[in-house]
Amino acid sequence: MLDDLEEFKRYRERMNVRILSASNLGIKRFFALDSRAYENGALDAKTKELLGLVASTVLRCNDCITYHVIRCVQEGVSDEELFEALNVALIVGGSITIPHIRRAVDMLDQCREKRREGSSVEI
Amino acid sequence: MLDDLEEFKRYRERMNVRILSASNLGIKRFFALDSRAYENGALDAKTKELLGLVASTVLRCNDCITYHVIRCVQEGVSDEELFEALNVALIVGGSITIPHIRRAVDMLDQCREKRREGSSVEI
Amino acid sequence: MLDDLEEFKRYRERMNVRILSASNLGIKRFFALDSRAYENGALDAKTKELLGLVASTVLRCNDCITYHVIRCVQEGVSDEELFEALNVALIVGGSITIPHIRRAVDMLDQCREKRREGSSVEI
Amino acid sequence: MLDDLEEFKRYRERMNVRILSASNLGIKRFFALDSRAYENGALDAKTKELLGLVASTVLRCNDCITYHVIRCVQEGVSDEELFEALNVALIVGGSITIPHIRRAVDMLDQCREKRREGSSVEI
Amino acid sequence: MLDDLEEFKRYRERMNVRILSASNLGIKRFFALDSRAYENGALDAKTKELLGLVASTVLRCNDCITYHVIRCVQEGVSDEELFEALNVALIVGGSITIPHIRRAVDMLDQCREKRREGSSVEI
Amino acid sequence: MLDDLEEFKRYRERMNVRILSASNLGIKRFFALDSRAYENGALDAKTKELLGLVASTVLRCNDCITYHVIRCVQEGVSDEELFEALNVALIVGGSITIPHIRRAVDMLDQCREKRREGSSVEI
Repeated sequence: MLDDLEEFKRYRERMNVRILSASNLGIKRFFALDSRAYENGALDAKTKELLGLVASTVLRCNDCITYHVIRCVQEGVSDEELFEALNVALIVGGSITIPHIRRAVDMLDQCREKRREGSSVEI
Repeated sequence: MLDDLEEFKRYRERMNVRILSASNLGIKRFFALDSRAYENGALDAKTKELLGLVASTVLRCNDCITYHVIRCVQEGVSDEELFEALNVALIVGGSITIPHIRRAVDMLDQCREKRREGSSVEI
Repeated sequence: MLDDLEEFKRYRERMNVRILSASNLGIKRFFALDSRAYENGALDAKTKELLGLVASTVLRCNDCITYHVIRCVQEGVSDEELFEALNVALIVGGSITIPHIRRAVDMLDQCREKRREGSSVEI
Repeated sequence: MLDDLEEFKRYRERMNVRILSASNLGIKRFFALDSRAYENGALDAKTKELLGLVASTVLRCNDCITYHVIRCVQEGVSDEELFEALNVALIVGGSITIPHIRRAVDMLDQCREKRREGSSVEI
Repeated sequence: MLDDLEEFKRYRERMNVRILSASNLGIKRFFALDSRAYENGALDAKTKELLGLVASTVLRCNDCITYHVIRCVQEGVSDEELFEALNVALIVGGSITIPHIRRAVDMLDQCREKRREGSSVEI
Repeated sequence: MLDDLEEFKRYRERMNVRILSASNLGIKRFFALDSRAYENGALDAKTKELLGLVASTVLRCNDCITYHVIRCVQEGVSDEELFEALNVALIVGGSITIPHIRRAVDMLDQCREKRREGSSVEI
């Protein structure tokens, strides 16, 4: 059941290494900016990950949703909080987001299952 | 300078009254669900308005941005918090969001100006 | 009150003439294909205009919405039918479509007003 | 050959049950509104499913396309009607929709094949 | 006739100054990365501006289109080249891009008119 | 490792034959226009394929990206040129395009690998 989650992480890591090994400075700098945007600041990391999750859901990107669900779990977001954030995404983005909300909840369940089994949820 | 803000509010109010006066029950119920999605719950209204603002920015809807900026100001979001939320939107959504980030900041400045003049910021 | 509608039609006509006067054959052929897609066939023109209206609303293009509302009125779509089509667009596309649904209803009202005044609704 | 169709239906059903078992009232109500939007009214269910199919195609959501193709087949849409609706989607949404039009036609063929084998096409 | 072009430039400049005066480092760095992405490299600036124009057209952002049309004119793109790029955008993005192609050609004509009058085309 | 590439090509070819065998003239003509948009003209085929790749990346369509990467390789685009085009797409479209940039680079590597093995890269 955890295969999707692990497959996503392996492909993501392998291709990120490949992309960053190329000589394109713009792409490297973008990746660095991307990481920093979610760090604690005036808004805390937890709130920013929820922002990232909702943005990913309304833009309907499964890989981005998977990433932000993992990060939300790491930041201690509760199930109830996650569902309320997904409800905002559903209202803003409409029924076209439903397949992606299915994915988000599936990934949430996979993360919770990993924790119950004593594994850590990493990205 | 406040004309955009006032014009948006008048047109929004006039057309909402018109739409809700029609006999379409589905649309009426959607409008009700829309309002409730941003009420205090496991996540507070302030966080939900930031979620709405980021969703509106990555989907690039100026009217929705204007609405959520007003609501963020009402919920006490600071300038620094708003810029950090917009930075997440900019990273996720790219330079295509920049014209909408200009609008968001313009609306923020108009709201702050209204308050300095002693007016309330309403929607 | 009819200014938006008339301004849209004038700008659209002027720029279409300009674009089709250029020597780009691909663009000319696309414009021809575009017109034919809405002609009577297995589905009638009225149904196809409703398809065009919903597509334009979920993709959130005000000019395209204005065009298809005018065409729907010409094809005899009733207010109740138009609102049901807009409700499908609202459910599929979410609250981000609301500003465009306001526009669609505004254009509908302008078309109905023109007819009451005895003018024809042309595109 | 029918595996995609069956896999989609199983995953959709399993995750819908999971999502609706959560305590989020907003999401439950949205799902109810979503179902009602396609019921017979001033426009019949067949027309509304075509609207849903075109909206899903221009927004490029394979799961939504699969759902609406199944529903179109149930409502008696002919192949010729379906292709004309897809042509409107292709013209409005451009070549970026072509991979999704391939999917729509693939799902149509799978539904027709099921019927030839004497199975019902369910969702 | 040049009012749109001038108004866009003034608003863009005023708001960029405002945004960059805020203390958000992420946004500042994004703006710097954005400028560098279009500089001469393995691909020349002219080709990159055409890439930016097509990206802006399929994503349907009028302000971005105006910016890249101005830059294309500065880089010496011919009318025929610009129309061929817009044709690619029209094919990929469909008829929903047509209002934006009207804008692109309108801005092109305004830039050419400015040059005929002896003015420089600046951004 | 080449399975994705080959599977995409087989499915694309099979479904294109199926779609073009239907009697819908509009769809057939669109497919013809689509091919012509990338032929040598005022802009050469190489530049047009880069335009198609960037458009596909910002619109986030993996199948379209795969197609244009193959065509870019056929037209002699260098790795450095391809990465600069992807950087423009990343800046315009934001981090939401990153999963698709992973796919583009993966497909590029698969094409280069095929050539090293002495196979031709066909579509």
